[in-house]
Amino acid sequence: MKIAVYPGSFDPVTCGHLDVIKRAAKVFDKLIVGVLVNSEKECAFSSKMRVDMIEKLSLPQNVEVISFDGLLVNFMRENNANILVRGLRAVSDYEYECQIAWINKKLMANCDTFFIPTAEEYAYLSSSIVREIARYNGDLTGLVPEELHSLIKDKLEV
Amino acid sequence: MKIAVYPGSFDPVTCGHLDVIKRAAKVFDKLIVGVLVNSEKECAFSSKMRVDMIEKLSLPQNVEVISFDGLLVNFMRENNANILVRGLRAVSDYEYECQIAWINKKLMANCDTFFIPTAEEYAYLSSSIVREIARYNGDLTGLVPEELHSLIKDKLEV
Amino acid sequence: MKIAVYPGSFDPVTCGHLDVIKRAAKVFDKLIVGVLVNSEKECAFSSKMRVDMIEKLSLPQNVEVISFDGLLVNFMRENNANILVRGLRAVSDYEYECQIAWINKKLMANCDTFFIPTAEEYAYLSSSIVREIARYNGDLTGLVPEELHSLIKDKLEV
Amino acid sequence: MKIAVYPGSFDPVTCGHLDVIKRAAKVFDKLIVGVLVNSEKECAFSSKMRVDMIEKLSLPQNVEVISFDGLLVNFMRENNANILVRGLRAVSDYEYECQIAWINKKLMANCDTFFIPTAEEYAYLSSSIVREIARYNGDLTGLVPEELHSLIKDKLEV
Amino acid sequence: MKIAVYPGSFDPVTCGHLDVIKRAAKVFDKLIVGVLVNSEKECAFSSKMRVDMIEKLSLPQNVEVISFDGLLVNFMRENNANILVRGLRAVSDYEYECQIAWINKKLMANCDTFFIPTAEEYAYLSSSIVREIARYNGDLTGLVPEELHSLIKDKLEV
Amino acid sequence: MKIAVYPGSFDPVTCGHLDVIKRAAKVFDKLIVGVLVNSEKECAFSSKMRVDMIEKLSLPQNVEVISFDGLLVNFMRENNANILVRGLRAVSDYEYECQIAWINKKLMANCDTFFIPTAEEYAYLSSSIVREIARYNGDLTGLVPEELHSLIKDKLEV
Repeated sequence: MKIAVYPGSFDPVTCGHLDVIKRAAKVFDKLIVGVLVNSEKECAFSSKMRVDMIEKLSLPQNVEVISFDGLLVNFMRENNANILVRGLRAVSDYEYECQIAWINKKLMANCDTFFIPTAEEYAYLSSSIVREIARYNGDLTGLVPEELHSLIKDKLEV
Repeated sequence: MKIAVYPGSFDPVTCGHLDVIKRAAKVFDKLIVGVLVNSEKECAFSSKMRVDMIEKLSLPQNVEVISFDGLLVNFMRENNANILVRGLRAVSDYEYECQIAWINKKLMANCDTFFIPTAEEYAYLSSSIVREIARYNGDLTGLVPEELHSLIKDKLEV
Repeated sequence: MKIAVYPGSFDPVTCGHLDVIKRAAKVFDKLIVGVLVNSEKECAFSSKMRVDMIEKLSLPQNVEVISFDGLLVNFMRENNANILVRGLRAVSDYEYECQIAWINKKLMANCDTFFIPTAEEYAYLSSSIVREIARYNGDLTGLVPEELHSLIKDKLEV
Repeated sequence: MKIAVYPGSFDPVTCGHLDVIKRAAKVFDKLIVGVLVNSEKECAFSSKMRVDMIEKLSLPQNVEVISFDGLLVNFMRENNANILVRGLRAVSDYEYECQIAWINKKLMANCDTFFIPTAEEYAYLSSSIVREIARYNGDLTGLVPEELHSLIKDKLEV
Repeated sequence: MKIAVYPGSFDPVTCGHLDVIKRAAKVFDKLIVGVLVNSEKECAFSSKMRVDMIEKLSLPQNVEVISFDGLLVNFMRENNANILVRGLRAVSDYEYECQIAWINKKLMANCDTFFIPTAEEYAYLSSSIVREIARYNGDLTGLVPEELHSLIKDKLEV
Repeated sequence: MKIAVYPGSFDPVTCGHLDVIKRAAKVFDKLIVGVLVNSEKECAFSSKMRVDMIEKLSLPQNVEVISFDGLLVNFMRENNANILVRGLRAVSDYEYECQIAWINKKLMANCDTFFIPTAEEYAYLSSSIVREIARYNGDLTGLVPEELHSLIKDKLEV
């Protein structure tokens, strides 16, 4: 059974994230969306809220959403996963992503990373852009799934 | 009438910014330098000071300096501008800039972005480098217009 | 009067090129599409054919198509143009383009370059991809304007 | 059944290619290594030789090696594959690869691309480097699988 | 006498830093490792601790470790150094590094920068990755010299 | 004695190359400019001419110009050199250069590569730009040392 982890902050989840989730879920037997609880980095949404927002979406049946703290490799081992899925956008997170892939390989020798290039319409989309637009009550259509719009704006609008 | 907006933090304005302003002002009928008042990001200079510093410079007649808060597209609409001007340096802000261009196009369909490559002598110049040098009383010649040297040092020198 | 030149091989012209032409034509008084006759680089289409294909398209009235040989700056001087327009795609021609901007500034001090980021749907489109697809009778929809499809396939299909 | 295609010139196959083949074969039910017969680009080895060299290696059982001509999407359709596997090296073929992913998605809507970052020890390895070293009888250890060393040198050494 | 400075935060020093130190020390008569005391940026280790950790390592005899505050060029002048050494990793700090080289040349005309590419096994290694792993008691082997493991974990482990 | 090699095609030598030569010659005891005789790549100038052009320049006394064929590491060994010097321009040859550094380290374990960032005024300069301009009798001032202007134009002007 091929179990993959797709980790991230998802602060909040975007249409680009959802696209990666759907494409990865087609290929792997089980996909765990790992929501990072990072005490260092301040998030706009609590980890509980970030998990809830993803679970609100209509996800493929083989997708599970779990929050985690600590090292990613430990989270993967606890869930018997040895495949790491990451999205890649036109905005160059490529080298940073290589760094993540490398350190995970270093800490967990049998860990394989698969990068999924995001669809062109999400090539420039990021959680921080979503937050910025929501803050000023801009239009979120095509950026985050519709069922989350009001929830995000309620929280962020100034 | 072609009205363009050149937005930024200008914290403080540099010779590179001034170069872009002059080149854009030659091509567009009116150029609005939009000084971003961003409550999130802490600036070294107040928004009023950042506006004042730009206005102290000898600018082309068709240039206006205005501070703004909120979404850039709203500021553009209020000023009847549909052209966005951005400088591009050798230091690769290119992908970040594409992201900005994309989100603005998304939020305002008739918005066109024009990138102006900065002159080679300013290819590596940034506001943060200026602040760093000013902090330790380094030489600002060729980095910021001379009329601002003492003003910047008075504020930043440790 | 602001006269701009948009130079290229256009071997063949793509939807991405046409998008840049239309956006530039809105801003400058006159836009000259300069089709490079380069004896060094072998083109799939003759320079005459490359000019003809662009002229077949419904262009804004202030656009003119001219082929040229030799240095770009000489072509610009002959046409009283001192603005250079270039498209920028996600695929990183940015640094190459900076090189072109730099050398043109070096050879013609009053030459200003404006980069126009291509629309996201053309971010990865290039003439060479078009030729590759046409060669094997693939679908050119959305890649080159429809009125050129048969012409291109007649020439390239193997 | 998840069928993936890993296309390339493999002129010749390197340890980096073999690493990608092995990692992809673990995840997909069937992996087809597609050897591109490209009449445009001159290869150092004939397509038959390039196929033979890959088949000489000890490959996982679910790997098949097939040469193909024409558009990649047609080759994928003929083999009922809708997953495209590509290796990514530190040397930035990232943007070029995005272009390939994009055009394949455009020509075959249900095609999903997966990028596999090459192991760090192969991060800078390429077929052209192998050919250059073989030409002057340099040491190929760690660059191409040992069983191919003499075959490659026989062909290329000057 | 050729005196070079290798500046950085070294928060903490990594195997990659040590590799650069050793290679630079072979070429220059004297190498000063300059530990930046930056009141702006919060470090995980005090400047004294960062100096101590480097001095704990078995360094070549012509290496000296000194902490400094203020502009790098002033530190270089005080130590009669006019060579600046910087490591370059696969993760693209290249453009940022060019910026540093440029501003130093601007502030100190006779300053020459030499970049040393880090060994491939350290291509993705950074102090922040080390801190992240140490925080959760992960394995630091191959990331920082062994003599520092317990010291780093004592300080950072949560 | 520290002997370094600065290899290249030098087709022709530019002001950027000369800048690197001068800066490297200050640091190493002996600098060998290695002019690559590459039967694969067609050069505009013969290897003899390319060597002659460099020798015509006023070089530091510890610089020697030698043409070589075959693998760079063999040339370095024959000349007792274990330092490789490469220039780095803003135009991103960085990753390609890392590849060269890596393969040389692989083939010659004690080989150390030093990158020298080119001065900002040569950041976009290349031999191919020089050839293009010379071909059409453009102005070579600031691009190649003056003593070579007529020689280059005599050979290349169309």
